[in-house]
Amino acid sequence: MARVADGADRVAWTRTNMPLLAELRREYADERPLAGRRLGMCLHVEPKTAVLVEVLLAGGCEIALTGSPATTDDGTAAYLDGLDGIEVWAANADDQAAHAAHIERILDWQPDLLLDNGADLIAGVVRRGIPVTAATEETTSGANRLKAELEGRVPFPVVVIDDSPLKRLIENTYGVGPTVVEGFMRATNLLVAATTFCVVGYGACGRGVARALRNDGASVIVVERNPVKALEAAFDGMRVLELERALPEADVVITVTGTTGVIGRSELALLRDDVLLANAGHFSEIDLEALGPGEALTVHVSRHGKVRLLGRGEMLNLTSATGNQIQVMDLGFALQARSLRELARDPARFALGPQPVPANVDDAVARGMLGALSATR
Amino acid sequence: MARVADGADRVAWTRTNMPLLAELRREYADERPLAGRRLGMCLHVEPKTAVLVEVLLAGGCEIALTGSPATTDDGTAAYLDGLDGIEVWAANADDQAAHAAHIERILDWQPDLLLDNGADLIAGVVRRGIPVTAATEETTSGANRLKAELEGRVPFPVVVIDDSPLKRLIENTYGVGPTVVEGFMRATNLLVAATTFCVVGYGACGRGVARALRNDGASVIVVERNPVKALEAAFDGMRVLELERALPEADVVITVTGTTGVIGRSELALLRDDVLLANAGHFSEIDLEALGPGEALTVHVSRHGKVRLLGRGEMLNLTSATGNQIQVMDLGFALQARSLRELARDPARFALGPQPVPANVDDAVARGMLGALSATR
Amino acid sequence: MARVADGADRVAWTRTNMPLLAELRREYADERPLAGRRLGMCLHVEPKTAVLVEVLLAGGCEIALTGSPATTDDGTAAYLDGLDGIEVWAANADDQAAHAAHIERILDWQPDLLLDNGADLIAGVVRRGIPVTAATEETTSGANRLKAELEGRVPFPVVVIDDSPLKRLIENTYGVGPTVVEGFMRATNLLVAATTFCVVGYGACGRGVARALRNDGASVIVVERNPVKALEAAFDGMRVLELERALPEADVVITVTGTTGVIGRSELALLRDDVLLANAGHFSEIDLEALGPGEALTVHVSRHGKVRLLGRGEMLNLTSATGNQIQVMDLGFALQARSLRELARDPARFALGPQPVPANVDDAVARGMLGALSATR
Amino acid sequence: MARVADGADRVAWTRTNMPLLAELRREYADERPLAGRRLGMCLHVEPKTAVLVEVLLAGGCEIALTGSPATTDDGTAAYLDGLDGIEVWAANADDQAAHAAHIERILDWQPDLLLDNGADLIAGVVRRGIPVTAATEETTSGANRLKAELEGRVPFPVVVIDDSPLKRLIENTYGVGPTVVEGFMRATNLLVAATTFCVVGYGACGRGVARALRNDGASVIVVERNPVKALEAAFDGMRVLELERALPEADVVITVTGTTGVIGRSELALLRDDVLLANAGHFSEIDLEALGPGEALTVHVSRHGKVRLLGRGEMLNLTSATGNQIQVMDLGFALQARSLRELARDPARFALGPQPVPANVDDAVARGMLGALSATR
Repeated sequence: MARVADGADRVAWTRTNMPLLAELRREYADERPLAGRRLGMCLHVEPKTAVLVEVLLAGGCEIALTGSPATTDDGTAAYLDGLDGIEVWAANADDQAAHAAHIERILDWQPDLLLDNGADLIAGVVRRGIPVTAATEETTSGANRLKAELEGRVPFPVVVIDDSPLKRLIENTYGVGPTVVEGFMRATNLLVAATTFCVVGYGACGRGVARALRNDGASVIVVERNPVKALEAAFDGMRVLELERALPEADVVITVTGTTGVIGRSELALLRDDVLLANAGHFSEIDLEALGPGEALTVHVSRHGKVRLLGRGEMLNLTSATGNQIQVMDLGFALQARSLRELARDPARFALGPQPVPANVDDAVARGMLGALSATR
Repeated sequence: MARVADGADRVAWTRTNMPLLAELRREYADERPLAGRRLGMCLHVEPKTAVLVEVLLAGGCEIALTGSPATTDDGTAAYLDGLDGIEVWAANADDQAAHAAHIERILDWQPDLLLDNGADLIAGVVRRGIPVTAATEETTSGANRLKAELEGRVPFPVVVIDDSPLKRLIENTYGVGPTVVEGFMRATNLLVAATTFCVVGYGACGRGVARALRNDGASVIVVERNPVKALEAAFDGMRVLELERALPEADVVITVTGTTGVIGRSELALLRDDVLLANAGHFSEIDLEALGPGEALTVHVSRHGKVRLLGRGEMLNLTSATGNQIQVMDLGFALQARSLRELARDPARFALGPQPVPANVDDAVARGMLGALSATR
Repeated sequence: MARVADGADRVAWTRTNMPLLAELRREYADERPLAGRRLGMCLHVEPKTAVLVEVLLAGGCEIALTGSPATTDDGTAAYLDGLDGIEVWAANADDQAAHAAHIERILDWQPDLLLDNGADLIAGVVRRGIPVTAATEETTSGANRLKAELEGRVPFPVVVIDDSPLKRLIENTYGVGPTVVEGFMRATNLLVAATTFCVVGYGACGRGVARALRNDGASVIVVERNPVKALEAAFDGMRVLELERALPEADVVITVTGTTGVIGRSELALLRDDVLLANAGHFSEIDLEALGPGEALTVHVSRHGKVRLLGRGEMLNLTSATGNQIQVMDLGFALQARSLRELARDPARFALGPQPVPANVDDAVARGMLGALSATR
Repeated sequence: MARVADGADRVAWTRTNMPLLAELRREYADERPLAGRRLGMCLHVEPKTAVLVEVLLAGGCEIALTGSPATTDDGTAAYLDGLDGIEVWAANADDQAAHAAHIERILDWQPDLLLDNGADLIAGVVRRGIPVTAATEETTSGANRLKAELEGRVPFPVVVIDDSPLKRLIENTYGVGPTVVEGFMRATNLLVAATTFCVVGYGACGRGVARALRNDGASVIVVERNPVKALEAAFDGMRVLELERALPEADVVITVTGTTGVIGRSELALLRDDVLLANAGHFSEIDLEALGPGEALTVHVSRHGKVRLLGRGEMLNLTSATGNQIQVMDLGFALQARSLRELARDPARFALGPQPVPANVDDAVARGMLGALSATR
């Protein structure tokens, strides 16, 4: 049985495990809700995204796609580039300058609908005055940017997918939690049970990580400033300590607060020798400069003084595992495809500027996923 | 070692396990924030409430107290009646008429501050035009009544304790959940492990009940109409079925939806012979009339045809256990005592009508409880 | 619905929840395997035992029954005394002298078959040379006594029920574990979650207690001398410390080692103020003399200096709960009834002296219980 | 940070996480317990084995090493071949004939001490009459072969490592369990939560797999013929069904019975379309011939009709993860190194033929591992 590694096969595996997108693809093909549209799209170019692209193409639009620096899967990019109706400007080797150039090319192409990730496209059309009907934005940080930089100046509706409570629950607690533990196991081949972890942050993601670790037999210390969340951690069976008291006790430290600079120079001084240090936040919460230069120990581990750093301090479930589970992304992308359809059909129904996913979309996706689970048979 | 059963001893045991109220009692005694106040108070007259009363008395007020029908602990009532500065109108034998008379007596007494449970006192002062500075209301159902019956007509601030997210999290998920399981064990002496439970409702309470059962080795089927909550149940490892499919599979059915009429005539027809049926909702969610007359099997179990009913269909953790854990009520009553102090000190700072617990109160109570837990040492 | 408290009703409730004994009762009534036998019997006189007695009587024997000091339920004794074919010598008020006198009366009655608990009857027939066909012994401590005092001098087979791996697994880990936690909750009304427990001993019982606590959100420290069991505790997510390091950290200490003198004078000195102290071992593992005289705080709690003792230091699941779950005792008593039937039918098939439950009996009971569980439907 | 993939680096990472072997290496270097010995060795040639080899070399022996077909890591083999005092005959490409030739070469080399895996070396020295002082055998299947083929004819002691209850507990339940779940996640990127798994077999390994899955939120159905083990599964919260009833309900089937032919033609007929099928037993328990030829879907998944097979039906934690955790193998190999030292020092103390690990070795290794865990600080 030969090794199968090219993009089409990886997309095929992913596609057969995304029942919500499969159903939407049938509906899109029937209804053609995006017929005649020009969709400017920015999203990590990897197999799950490819399945979403296939749905959108079935809806009748043309697509100009770019990704983000360093996250492009070149096989997937090649696969997508071979489809009709889409142009792909993305490569794994892209740096920030290349990314900026790709964004400009998409803007030159004059899109009239946007699916954005980080608000680069949205900021661009506002800056250049390109007339756009509507947009979706994948991330909360993109939404924050719209509020900060463009407050009141976005002349079209922008549905922010990450604001869906459904997505937040499933993706953060049940998606990130277990896949971060998987990343730890893949990166190290070390025990979770009988090991002391310090999880910094007990939001939706941190809670998922800490619970998955405790369920696997770890001793978990949680550091959390918000006293209500800290109390929840204690009732969930975690020890709850101040950062300064927690760090010297940990075999493994995982940051997942949603802020940056969590582990800096003074925190490093508190760590035990040979501590394992990992990050599960969207932006690295470890001050890599303070860590100093590293020496690679394995593909996933590098040594920086007494610290052993996992996955270069970037999101552990992406660097050392395969990211969230396919079905979890099926849910998140079904929110995308349904929101985009509603926006394209009746943009006037929506307010201008950033706003949450419509309640009927959340509800339909939750029902769809429930129906797809064997737990409901 | 003789049996110690009188109220003072039960209050003493409870008091030594309520560190937050102990600290507030010291502060109240120093600061006398209620000096000169006349506090009309309605709350279940049992040991935990008695500890709260002692705090409030230390603050300098006089109190007129009544309870609710059937929930008064006569020993506690006798103990409180022996204290200075308080009059108690409550007995276990009280019916609705007696309760209504007690309320009127408190209103006759002309309180100027209220601590209410179900909004009988608040509705009374509004009706009779008694000038009151401020009130707290323990329950959401009391708050709903204020909104429905008295909308816009409450001329003083009312802090609704149950709206605190802190209280909801701790009391519903970690208080009700395990104590309902305790009630099941006490009522039946039967296994939780290797038993199939159907939990109807996956809100904050239902989630607590279902998780506690699953953690103890039960097979749990959840019935939940809200698709997002149903999805959460599935990801927590529960089977999620429609009520009609779930009932025939259950050894034990526990209702905890927050509505009534969940198990009526048509649902009863679906149950297995000898099923155990219990309720964990505030108001019984079982149609007791449809059940028909019962024959007592034990103190906690009665037979109604093929059904074996636990705890007369009332809240199982109260009928067959001792209610929420003492520390959980310490937290809830600390919210009461702190809110009342803020209201008495500076009522003008508050809006009129029902409103949530001030954020600084939530925060202080959460920090206080964190400090009291050994998990934070 | 009146309070139903007399023995017959409690036996009835218990009987309807013991499907294995119900089936054996039918078989016994058909086959009459004990017809003409005189069964001398010593077992705690409480409702579960009563259901076993009914099975044995259905098999055609006469029974002379006594219990143990302090554990007799007088209502159950009265109920059994009213049945045909049985004489009961047992009262809750019995002391050791009364117990010894009851044993002698049963020996005077010249039994030819024994069902023993602690080996008093077996030792008596050997001493007095009463000819007996066979016996069962409920406890390991009874079996140890046979080996120590009567080595090689028991001229009939004795099946030791406690040596069944089936019984040990189900009764110790899944019976004692959760019911000790129930006893803690009933005795104190305090939280399990967010509380630090020290469980001394990680054998079959201690493992059950520690896991049940951890599953309910406690922080659990285990003390265990055997390094393999200690390692198992660590992999199960417990902290594992020496007794001297563990005691000062605990909110609650539970002893369950199977030995005595675990908490003596020097250990008491290490405990925190207001610590809760409980025992889950068959014989109290707390040096009650070292504790000194106590003052009752509640029905289940007494204060001895800085220590708060639960359930008088006796088995917490018996003093403060209702003992093992009914179905668990159904399994243990089915082993009794089946072993006794085999012994009565063909004693020559058995070796002389103490020996384990026959494998076919273990197997039949395990299959029977499997069939009775809804988890197998 | 460059990719580091050569054998020396992987051995280095492994070595720094094996504290028991590190201590033994110091002791071996001091004591030289194997000075002058010629050790014939057969074990999977991969990084964990390399760390054991380094310990043994430090003890003063010469080594001739071979591995098993298909499991050799060529980088590790190259690394070891570069050390003094060892010859390595092993390559990833080895087939059974090459393996047999390597065994003969080691026998030609005239070893006087053996560390064997599957008993090829032991059988060889017996056949050829080579005088050997003592041996260890890693596997139970090797021990079974000694009993079957060579009963009474092994003229030297053979310590069977797998018979250690310590190794069985840690390696099977806590090693195999979580790493099989890791293998499932790596192979598929699919959810564990909200998914129905059928685990066939509830021995030490199956119990570990099933519990790890349930802890991660899966619904788990267990199939187990032994009624006592089946009862344990039910009390652990698993559904327990006959194979014919379980298979049609499963999303994923994992075999782990210790036998072969578990999933054959008639079982395949019962599976759902698109079922995922995996094996966690030492020898594949899936009848690969009955499956028919497959088409690769991804590196880890192939399609055979309606079935999607993971990891070619071989041990999922080896094909799709990195095998047991490093510390778990540290424990197993510490048993090896300590047993070998005892055998070399005083072979006369041991019986001839296969026998369990000496109790003092088990005890020392358990204590050593306890001391290395942070859970004991």
